[in-house]
Order: sequence, then structure tokens, then C-alpha cells
Amino acid sequence: MNNLIEHLIYGLDLFGTAIFALSGVLMAGRLRMDAIGVIVLAAVTAIGGGTIRDLLIGARPFWIQNTTYLWVILGTAGLGMLLTRLPKRLPWYTLPLADALGLALFVVIGAQKALSFGTSNMVAVVMGVITGVAGGMIRDMLAREVPLVLQKEIYATACIVGGILYTGSLELGLGALPAMLISMVGLLALRITAIFRHLSLPTFSL
Amino acid sequence: MNNLIEHLIYGLDLFGTAIFALSGVLMAGRLRMDAIGVIVLAAVTAIGGGTIRDLLIGARPFWIQNTTYLWVILGTAGLGMLLTRLPKRLPWYTLPLADALGLALFVVIGAQKALSFGTSNMVAVVMGVITGVAGGMIRDMLAREVPLVLQKEIYATACIVGGILYTGSLELGLGALPAMLISMVGLLALRITAIFRHLSLPTFSL
Amino acid sequence: MNNLIEHLIYGLDLFGTAIFALSGVLMAGRLRMDAIGVIVLAAVTAIGGGTIRDLLIGARPFWIQNTTYLWVILGTAGLGMLLTRLPKRLPWYTLPLADALGLALFVVIGAQKALSFGTSNMVAVVMGVITGVAGGMIRDMLAREVPLVLQKEIYATACIVGGILYTGSLELGLGALPAMLISMVGLLALRITAIFRHLSLPTFSL
Repeated sequence: MNNLIEHLIYGLDLFGTAIFALSGVLMAGRLRMDAIGVIVLAAVTAIGGGTIRDLLIGARPFWIQNTTYLWVILGTAGLGMLLTRLPKRLPWYTLPLADALGLALFVVIGAQKALSFGTSNMVAVVMGVITGVAGGMIRDMLAREVPLVLQKEIYATACIVGGILYTGSLELGLGALPAMLISMVGLLALRITAIFRHLSLPTFSL
Repeated sequence: MNNLIEHLIYGLDLFGTAIFALSGVLMAGRLRMDAIGVIVLAAVTAIGGGTIRDLLIGARPFWIQNTTYLWVILGTAGLGMLLTRLPKRLPWYTLPLADALGLALFVVIGAQKALSFGTSNMVAVVMGVITGVAGGMIRDMLAREVPLVLQKEIYATACIVGGILYTGSLELGLGALPAMLISMVGLLALRITAIFRHLSLPTFSL
Repeated sequence: MNNLIEHLIYGLDLFGTAIFALSGVLMAGRLRMDAIGVIVLAAVTAIGGGTIRDLLIGARPFWIQNTTYLWVILGTAGLGMLLTRLPKRLPWYTLPLADALGLALFVVIGAQKALSFGTSNMVAVVMGVITGVAGGMIRDMLAREVPLVLQKEIYATACIVGGILYTGSLELGLGALPAMLISMVGLLALRITAIFRHLSLPTFSL
């Protein structure tokens, strides 16, 4: 049973990696990069956040131990370049929803890994957010755009809420699995509402 | 006595963190970010330099151990969004002078921490400079601007001078406190002169 | 004999550092930076890739142990600012060819160091590529340009080929030196062909 759940989490993690890689592929296509540029942008988007988290908490980057993540990125980049027309045939909300699912898992996994390296709850929330958004931020910096996650519909905000729900549930004595479910449901509810209602936080300007 | 000085340094360090965070808030306001973008930009500016220094010398990032820095950033971001009109009512040199004070301390703290991890004097100077300028450089990269510190009035230069004064004073046998004072006075004198006289190094162009 | 080869590799490594630093100097000149900006951009370009590699594999950044690299960068920045007209008097292919030689060595050194820290062959190739291209990518991000290496004539591609040739040769039982030569010759052949024929991979666009 426990083993089944671990496999499910691992599978979702690889799924999230593929979805994040795909968003890098789409950006590379807009910038007319060659195949290698596509792979680099896919990799940076998919594993950039987790890599920064691992460096900060003192872990060896996860993809150095397990190269499956790199193969998923290579496969996504290859498929993404072949099937360039596919995204246009899918309903518009397909990619945002898949991204939300990957994001929810990345945030929980990031917060969990930080806690297992002995951080406080507050730092675990920060690490969850970094896992979720830093890859996309580097992708946008490479593409010379002001990072979308700093402006887009309740994106980083949803990560913060997800991280607080996760560490808060653990603090209340819930097990890892219920805490994970509560956090992911909360984050997904927020992101899905924002996607379909185009909700944004009020912006602050001088 | 020694304890008092340590408290003073810690207080100045938190003050510098708040000032650097505020410069991130002001940039976020110019880019019309939402509250989360404001917090991210404030955090990157305030603790980015020290974080890179810690990763390079093999230390655990300082804010993972002591989350007071994160609370100072949150508080500054919150206050900064409430008091958007305040900066305009202060004399124009208020923020640059506060920034110079924070900078002077960041450089000395960065160089000192590097030395305590066994680096050479030259690397300690580099780490002092990174502590002082890297956060602002990442802030500018996120905002799609060529980093100001690479162009502005004797900014990185002042950090180098401060770092050399600090390690040089220690090398001459002075204690940590006199070395710190000499370095900070030198750096502040240079920055304050540059601020009021609008001094810049000659630029190099092809 | 072995000692001679080690000296040769070290000399080529410093030569590559100087060449990469020079490309940072040229970029700084185009951006009209001051002397410190020139040094920062030279340093980021020359040691940025190796530094990221070292952080990822858990090594102490190489220039913290051996500050010769920093002195080479300082010297190159100084000379580069004095001799601004020199590049225009050299044949146009001088700098690209020198860069290709530095690149070939950086890739091999990066892959070798990763293997010596116990990574798999695939990760070693990734580390070779990072050593070769990450410095230039940060340089371009600081200069607000979409990284050239993601778009330019078979640049990152040549690094991947070089990395695969190196790890593949070792896997086939060849010694470190023949593997190194095969890898460098392959990478150089690819880069030199691309430079003179202006070859590029087909770009991918949406």
C-alpha cells in the first residue's frame, strides 16, 4: 500500500517534470531556438527549481542520482518538437491544468524534502515555493521576459498557500499523506479558480 | 562589551536587510507586480548576495538557520506597499545613504564569514563584494535591466575597496573591530562622495 | 611525462579562462560599463560555468582553492581595456578559434571532474556542457540578451558531442589522455566547421 503510494508520487513527479519541460519547449519555439536550445530551456524549467532547493538545503541535486528525470526531459523535448501542432488542437485549459497538477506536487515534494533536511516550517514553505516557481523564473530570464510567475494569476501565491497547508497539517498531527492531499487540493482549487476566472492579485505600483 | 558589539552588528545586519529589501520593493512597484512578486523581489535583493556567498564557501545559507531575516523582509515588503508615498517625502539622499550603510556592513560580514571558512584574503574580498552586490544584480536581471551596480557611481568599486581595507587591516595585525571600522568608514566615504558628487568611473567602450 | 601533460592541461585551462574572460570584456565594452563592470563580466563568463558545475557535484569552487584563475581574469580585463583595438586588427576567426580551443578543454575538464565525483556518464556529459556554456549564458543574461549559445552555430551541440566522445572513449577502455584527445578533436572539428561554414542546426519555431 505504502509502496503503491510512493510509486504514484514518483509517477506524478515525472509527469510534472514532463509538463514543466513542455513549457520550456514552447518558450524555446517562440524564440526560434535550435534543438539544443530547446533541450536546455526544457531542462532549466523542469529541474531548475528542485536543483536550487537541493543546493540551498545541502542535498545533492536529485537528477544527479536518478537520471530518469533527464531522460523524461529529453523525451519531452523530442516529442514536443515533433508534435508542435498538438497544443493548438487541445482545449486551451489542458496545459494550465496539467501545469497546476505538476505544480501542486512539486511544492509538496519540495517542502517535504526541506523538512527531512531539518529546516523550520517557514523555510520548508519557502523551499516548496522555490521548487515550484524558480525553474519558470530562470526560463523567463533566459528568454528576456519579466518572470510570469511574479505577475500571473495567483501562481506563486498558490504555492505559498500549498506550502502552508502542508506544513500546517503536519504541525496539527496529520500524517504525511493526508497533509499532502490537503495541500494539493488547496493549491489546485486556487489555481483552477484563477485559471478559469482569470483572477489576479491587485498589482502594486508606484 | 563584546556582546554589545555583536548585538550592534546583528542589528545593523537586519537594518541592511530591510534597506536592500526596500530597494526590491521599489523595483517591483515600477514593474507593477502583485504582492507576491514584491516579496520575491525584496527577498532576492536582500538575501541573494549572502546566499550565493554561503553556497560558494560551503556554508548553509544564513536565513535557513535564522528566519528573522525572512520576517524582516516580509515586514519591509508589507510596510513598503502601505507607505508608497513615504520615499517621495524624504530627502532624495535618504535611501542612498541608508543603502551605503547596509552595503558597508554586508561587505565586511561577507569577507569575515569567508575568512572564517578558511579562504585566502583575495577570495574573502570577492565574497565581500558578492555579498554586497549580487542580490541587486539578480533583482536587475529579474527586472530585465542591465545591472545598475555594473554601471553606477562607484558601487562595486566601493565594495572592493572596503574588502581590501578589511582584509588588509587584519593582515597588519589589527583586531576584527578596528578592521571593521576602517573598512566601513572607507567604503562609506567613497559611496557618500560618489552619491553627492555623482562620481563615476570612466566607462569603457568599444 | 605525466607531469608534463598535467602542466599542459593546466596551461590550456588558464588559456581558456583568459579567452572566455576576454569575451566578457568585449560584451562589457559594448554595454559601456566601467572597469569594475568589465571585471565582473569577465569573471562571470570565465569561471561561471565551472563554479555551477562544482556547486552541483558538491565540490568547492576551483578558484577558491587556486586564485591563479582570478589573477588571469584581472590581467585579461586590464589588458583587454588597454588593447581595445587589437581584436579589430586580428583576422576575424582568431577569437572564435581561440574560444573553440578553450571550450574543448573546459568540456573535457568538466566531464572528468564530474566522473571523479562519482556521477554517471550522462551526468558527466551534462556537467561538461555546463562548464562550457553556463558562463556565457550568465554573461548574456546580465547583458539582457537571449543567450547566444542557445542559438549560435552548433555551440552547445559541439559540447554535447565532446562530452559523449569523452565518456564513451573511457567506457570503451581507453585511457584518460586518448579519450581527452578524441573528445577535443571531435569538438574542435565540429566548431571549426561551423565557424567557417556558418553552420547552424535548424531552428524550431511554433
